[in-house]
Parts: sequence; structure tokens; C-alpha cells
Amino acid sequence: MKLYIGNKNYSSWSMRSGVLLAAFGIPFEEVKLRFDFSAGSEWSRVIATVTPTLRVPVIVEADGFTVWDTLAITEYIADRHPELPIWPRDAKARARARSLCAEMHAGFSRLRTVCPMNIEAFFPEIGAKLWAEDAALRADVGRMQAAWSDALATSGGPFLFGEFSAADAYFAPVAVRLSRFGLPVSEAAAAYRDALLAHPAVEDWVAEALREQDFVPEDEPYRTGR
Amino acid sequence: MKLYIGNKNYSSWSMRSGVLLAAFGIPFEEVKLRFDFSAGSEWSRVIATVTPTLRVPVIVEADGFTVWDTLAITEYIADRHPELPIWPRDAKARARARSLCAEMHAGFSRLRTVCPMNIEAFFPEIGAKLWAEDAALRADVGRMQAAWSDALATSGGPFLFGEFSAADAYFAPVAVRLSRFGLPVSEAAAAYRDALLAHPAVEDWVAEALREQDFVPEDEPYRTGR
Ligand SMILES: N[C@@H](CCC(=O)N[C@@H](CS)C(=O)NCC(=O)O)C(=O)O
Ligand SMILES: N[C@@H](CCC(=O)N[C@@H](CS)C(=O)NCC(=O)O)C(=O)O
Repeated sequence: MKLYIGNKNYSSWSMRSGVLLAAFGIPFEEVKLRFDFSAGSEWSRVIATVTPTLRVPVIVEADGFTVWDTLAITEYIADRHPELPIWPRDAKARARARSLCAEMHAGFSRLRTVCPMNIEAFFPEIGAKLWAEDAALRADVGRMQAAWSDALATSGGPFLFGEFSAADAYFAPVAVRLSRFGLPVSEAAAAYRDALLAHPAVEDWVAEALREQDFVPEDEPYRTGR
Repeated sequence: MKLYIGNKNYSSWSMRSGVLLAAFGIPFEEVKLRFDFSAGSEWSRVIATVTPTLRVPVIVEADGFTVWDTLAITEYIADRHPELPIWPRDAKARARARSLCAEMHAGFSRLRTVCPMNIEAFFPEIGAKLWAEDAALRADVGRMQAAWSDALATSGGPFLFGEFSAADAYFAPVAVRLSRFGLPVSEAAAAYRDALLAHPAVEDWVAEALREQDFVPEDEPYRTGR
């Protein structure tokens, strides 16, 4: 099984699937397509041959069968590995985990737009300015925090539903954003953010992102170079 | 089990869950919250008490437990009804169905923006104008058609994966949009659109939408009244 991903530094959706597979010890071959959308680049030559959506992540099986989109990838992996607690075992916790992931999948658009993932960069001053000026950003972070606190209070932590699950893989890029932009969060949310950042699968992803040393202008609203 | 929905005429996300439950004969109590966001309206008084996202659809169980977001609702219902083929039984078809639903959930934004669902209204002239002028709309419809054709060619139809499944419930509002805006599609896509519109669960939803006789300015970019 191959998992096609984008730049680890920037690709928050790739990170969700990469961290999920790594956290559960599921073997896969990682294929990175750098975010270089220019004509003739590897991305431009390859992406359409592996996924009709032209987006990463995407799973490609040995027989050519593909599964695209992080949510479908998560369910596919959970389907194939019923022995692993990819979703919480408890039916209510599982439904809640899926509600949170689906909410993330189509929501939090302000947070995603103004605080794009950029693992190697720290923007505390930009974060402070955005925080002061952007009510929609504060609303997104407020809702996120409420959702986390509610799940953590029910489970007792350290992860949303106790043990690490697919929902935590889904919020790993958010932990990066909160830390890189220095956004203020409650004590409970900060503890969860830090638990995410200290998870070995997240630490490995972050370490590899730092080794990339790449610069993608499309993903850099706040820097002009590395 | 209660399903909170918005106006049947306008609420494409509500339609997905409503049609899914009806198509599989799953009993539920429907609670409609009209799209009236003014202070003191029923929506404004009730929505925050049933869902933290302030959106419909949402399931509320007798004990108060809630499941929000159409994708999480679909998985919850599939989880609770393993005896029903809510997702295709074949593992590959199931993965493909989930890829398509997830793609719909976060994608096709141009189609969703410029051709909002409005069951009682027919806009063939606006559709023709949009079609001529809007490349992003044509790209969305082109991708949708390719995805449908691929699934239908594999399954043999009449629905995406043969028998009616959650994926078809997910595309029911798209069938309405294509028909109301008269957007041109291939023969295969048109046959599928019509099969969706002729499904009893979709026909019932449409009939009830027509009985609403309501007008929500926020959802009416093209009309000034009924
Ligand atoms: N809904 C998709 C989103 C995937 C997505 O937007 N991926 C980005 C990278 S993080 C991408 O491939 N962008 C390339 C492009 O838009 O051309 C998922 O959950 O997998
Ligand atoms: N991702 C959500 C989308 C739900 C959604 O956007 N619902 C709309 C109605 S179709 C809504 O509640 N709008 C009210 C509002 O935004 O205030 C889902 O799949 O359920």
C-alpha cells in the first residue's frame, strides 16, 4: 500500500493520514509529491495518474485501487483493521469522534485560511495580531476548544477519547497551527495540544518536515523566503 | 430518535440525512427548524440547545445524545444497522462510496455556491448563463459526471453502486440542482440524475418541500419573492 502525500511541512491533510498510519503501526510506502504545480513538475506529471481529485493524500493499492480523501482513508483503514481501535470502541464515543472529524473536514475555514500549517515557521507576532483583529478566527478556536474540552472531560484524556484514535490524527495539524501562531487556549486545550505534539507519530512527522528545507510560495502568506 | 432539519426546499445537507433514513425505512421523528435566523425565532431559541455547530442536520437520541454532520450521521446509522446495506457490501465499492461522499462533503464549492438548492424554483436561463460564463462551475460538474460515470460503469447502475446506498443519498441534492438549473450533462449522468429524482424517498422530500411555501432571502440569490 502506497500513501501519496505532499510536503510534510505544509500538507495538513497528508499529515492526518500519515500520522494515523504511523500511530497504529500500519505498514505503508510513502510517496512524496512536492508541491510544485509548474508544468512538467513531478506533481504535474503524476497527480492525475493517481487521483481524480488531483489532491493528496491518496492511497494506492498494489492492484491500482485508490482511496482518496482523509475521511475515506480513515474509514478504509478502520474497515481493514478491525483489530485496531482506530475509532473508539464505545459506540457513543465513536459517533462523537466522527462528528468532530466531519466538522473539521468541512469547517474551521477561518483558522485554516489565516493560519495555514507551516511546521518550520513560528509566527507569534502575526498570531497575536490576528487574534486581536479577527473575530472569525477567535470563534473557530473557541469552538475547537469547546469541542476538545467536552471530549476530554468525558474521556479523562490524555487524548480526545482516552487512547489515541483517528480523531487525534485529525487534529494533529491544528496542534501545530496553535503552537506556531501562539494562539491562546485554555489549560485543558493546551495540555491536549501538547499531548498531540509529543505523540511519537507526530514528532516523527514534524522532524521529517524540518528536514525538507523547501519553500512553497502558495503556502506562504507570511514569509518571502526560508 | 429525532432528526432536526432545516427547510426542505433549501437545506441540501438536511436532505441527505432525511433521504437516507427514509430510503432505508429507519423510523425517526422529524423536527423542522425553519431558516429564520432573526433574534427570538424558533431557530435562534432552539439550535444551540441541540447542536454545538449551530447547523442542521443533527440527530438527537431519547437520552439527549447528539450526532451532528451528515457524514457522521451516515456512519452512525450504518454502525447501528449492520443488517442494512447503507454502505455497499463489497469492500472496494464501500471505499469508493466513502471517497465520493467525502469529496462531496468538502468539495464542489462552485456548484454549491452558484447553484444553491431550491426545489420549487426553475432557473434554466440562469443556468445557461452560468454554464457559458463560469469555468469553475463547468469543472465541478465535469468532475461530478466523471465520478458518477466511473461508478455506474463499474456497478451497472441504476444507482452508483447498484442498489441505492448512502452515496446516492449524498448526491440527491445535486440531482435537484442539475435539474433546476438545467445544467447539461452526459446521457449516463442524466439517467442517474433521473433515477435519483424518481426514488421514492427523494420524491417524498421534494413533495414536502413544495408544500412549504416559504421564502428565505439568504438562500435566494436569484429571486426576490415566491
Ligand atoms: N478533503 C481533502 C482535502 C485534500 C487537500 O486539499 N489536499 C491539499 C494538500 S493539504 C492538496 O492536495 N492541494 C493541492 C491542490 O489543491 O492543487 C481531504 O480530506 O483529503
Ligand atoms: N458539514 C455539515 C454542513 C451542515 C450545514 O451547513 N447546514 C446548513 C443547512 S443546509 C445550516 O445549518 N446552515 C445554518 C447556518 O449556517 O447558520 C454537514 O455535512 O452536516
